[in-house]
Amino acid sequence: MSLSIRDVERAYERIKGVLHKTPILSSSRLNRALGHQIFFKAENFQKTGSFKARGAYNALSQMYENKSMPKKLIAYSSGNHSQAMAWAAQQFQVPIDLYMVSSASKVKTAAAAAKKARLIFKDTRFEIEESARSASANKEGELVVFDHEFVISGHGTACYEALDQLQGQNVSAVFAPLGGGGLLSGTLISAKGINSALQVFAGEPLSANDGARTLRSGKIFRWKDEPPTIADGVRTLSLTQRTFHYLKMLNGVFEITEDEIIYWTQWVSHLLKIHLEPSGALGMCAAWRWLAEQNTSCSVLVILSGGNFDSLKAQRIWEKEWLETYPSMHIFQH
Amino acid sequence: MSLSIRDVERAYERIKGVLHKTPILSSSRLNRALGHQIFFKAENFQKTGSFKARGAYNALSQMYENKSMPKKLIAYSSGNHSQAMAWAAQQFQVPIDLYMVSSASKVKTAAAAAKKARLIFKDTRFEIEESARSASANKEGELVVFDHEFVISGHGTACYEALDQLQGQNVSAVFAPLGGGGLLSGTLISAKGINSALQVFAGEPLSANDGARTLRSGKIFRWKDEPPTIADGVRTLSLTQRTFHYLKMLNGVFEITEDEIIYWTQWVSHLLKIHLEPSGALGMCAAWRWLAEQNTSCSVLVILSGGNFDSLKAQRIWEKEWLETYPSMHIFQH
Repeated sequence: MSLSIRDVERAYERIKGVLHKTPILSSSRLNRALGHQIFFKAENFQKTGSFKARGAYNALSQMYENKSMPKKLIAYSSGNHSQAMAWAAQQFQVPIDLYMVSSASKVKTAAAAAKKARLIFKDTRFEIEESARSASANKEGELVVFDHEFVISGHGTACYEALDQLQGQNVSAVFAPLGGGGLLSGTLISAKGINSALQVFAGEPLSANDGARTLRSGKIFRWKDEPPTIADGVRTLSLTQRTFHYLKMLNGVFEITEDEIIYWTQWVSHLLKIHLEPSGALGMCAAWRWLAEQNTSCSVLVILSGGNFDSLKAQRIWEKEWLETYPSMHIFQH
Repeated sequence: MSLSIRDVERAYERIKGVLHKTPILSSSRLNRALGHQIFFKAENFQKTGSFKARGAYNALSQMYENKSMPKKLIAYSSGNHSQAMAWAAQQFQVPIDLYMVSSASKVKTAAAAAKKARLIFKDTRFEIEESARSASANKEGELVVFDHEFVISGHGTACYEALDQLQGQNVSAVFAPLGGGGLLSGTLISAKGINSALQVFAGEPLSANDGARTLRSGKIFRWKDEPPTIADGVRTLSLTQRTFHYLKMLNGVFEITEDEIIYWTQWVSHLLKIHLEPSGALGMCAAWRWLAEQNTSCSVLVILSGGNFDSLKAQRIWEKEWLETYPSMHIFQH
């Protein structure tokens, strides 16, 4: 367990001709209101709608180079990781079995089917996880790619690319969402590898704060069941030993309320005119908390992780009016 | 009334250092499903969130050049045009009075106030229009900028810029929303001026089809009251003599149902990961209708006009699930 900036650089060489170089966005209105400069890395515009395509593509590309490509890939859940794996598998023409809950929305099943994934339905989330893992354990050459160094170094390219785009901007801190820790592990390797003084912070839902608990106690905290939060992209049960290792480099974790998540999902969507999922706004929530405590004007990088959601989620995001509270953003006590 | 491509070229020289060069977006998934190539001009990313900033800025810039800048500007309604006028007035440090209905959302009043507009509230839409017009008629040097050649040539820069970005792509048709006709007048001048064989089509809500009626009958049709459509950006009462003149060059108007507007607002938002208002999707609705009748694969330009909406509108956009009907898009009879 010793990934370095060299691994991210090599990952970037693998992906850069295939994946999108996503834009850096900013809002002059937001910057004026806050008195700081925020640069947003818009990974909602990445292939498959999230940064997950970076890790997935890098992993398969690296396996291909190493001549260790599995005969078949296996993934589970219908979230951004699986959609990215299905897409990457299609690029390398490797078959993929995707275990999904039968209640998954047609939007997600259609998206996976469009990428030629074979869909296998089970009733519960635990059944899909168990079936996927036992399928891969029982058959040689079938692999669940998850919690893997190749994935982490691929994810690290989002921050790496952004810092390259922002050369000369004097960025002092980087903010990203915390779920299983893959994005933040890669972000830490990139940011600290490029400039060891660069601070890195996580935004994690308070109601799904296994990461913060783990870092406080020094022992991996694991939920028995999926924690409840509107940010479905970070409803992971726990960190892994691998991500815990890297996350010890974090400068802090901000535990974000559901109201804050929805507030910033609305506001970032409105200011930047982008389609942003609630998980994607967690970095902004953390940045806002941190910036409120700074006495001098700062430039920071916020990684917006993805933009995949369906109508039901959109209804939840927009059911309450938060835009009218702007620009008096100091509505939350913390 | 004889604007030409030269006027648009000059307008572009005025605006190009100040306004955003908005990106051209596309969706490989959508293109595969339709068998055509659609290039989207994303004016939701324009200053003030819509193409309206182009006409507003060009108008004031041209008045400044001509030394005919009014002492005070007057605008009414809280829509994209007024927001753009307030922004442009701020750039040229001209005071602006903005007449708004007292029921306007706080989001819109805050946005106008942030641009230093002086807000004057009246109870109804007709009162604000009347008050604004009589205020400008009664005082020398106070001007309502609307239905103006400088605005039309400014609006034409969206299509002009897009066709420049798309050189070599063999675009055969251009699609844009039809409200008062300013955007389409400018678009026609640009498109036909660059290539007289280029076809230009409008998308107009069926429930607000004064433009289609006017073009059919040859006589300007005027609503007694704001027509009902979710596409609030095109709830104008009628074309003007000026826009009617240019709109005679249109190759066709597609009259779009409310379901189609919402369907494509959801789908374009989802596929391109952008924040798009329902009016902004009308060009795509028209393109989809037209492309369905083509026997060969085509490349077309769709102008997405803007991305300003509040939570109430978002609730209406997302209240019904339309994403699940993809990719079988032939759900509408026409």
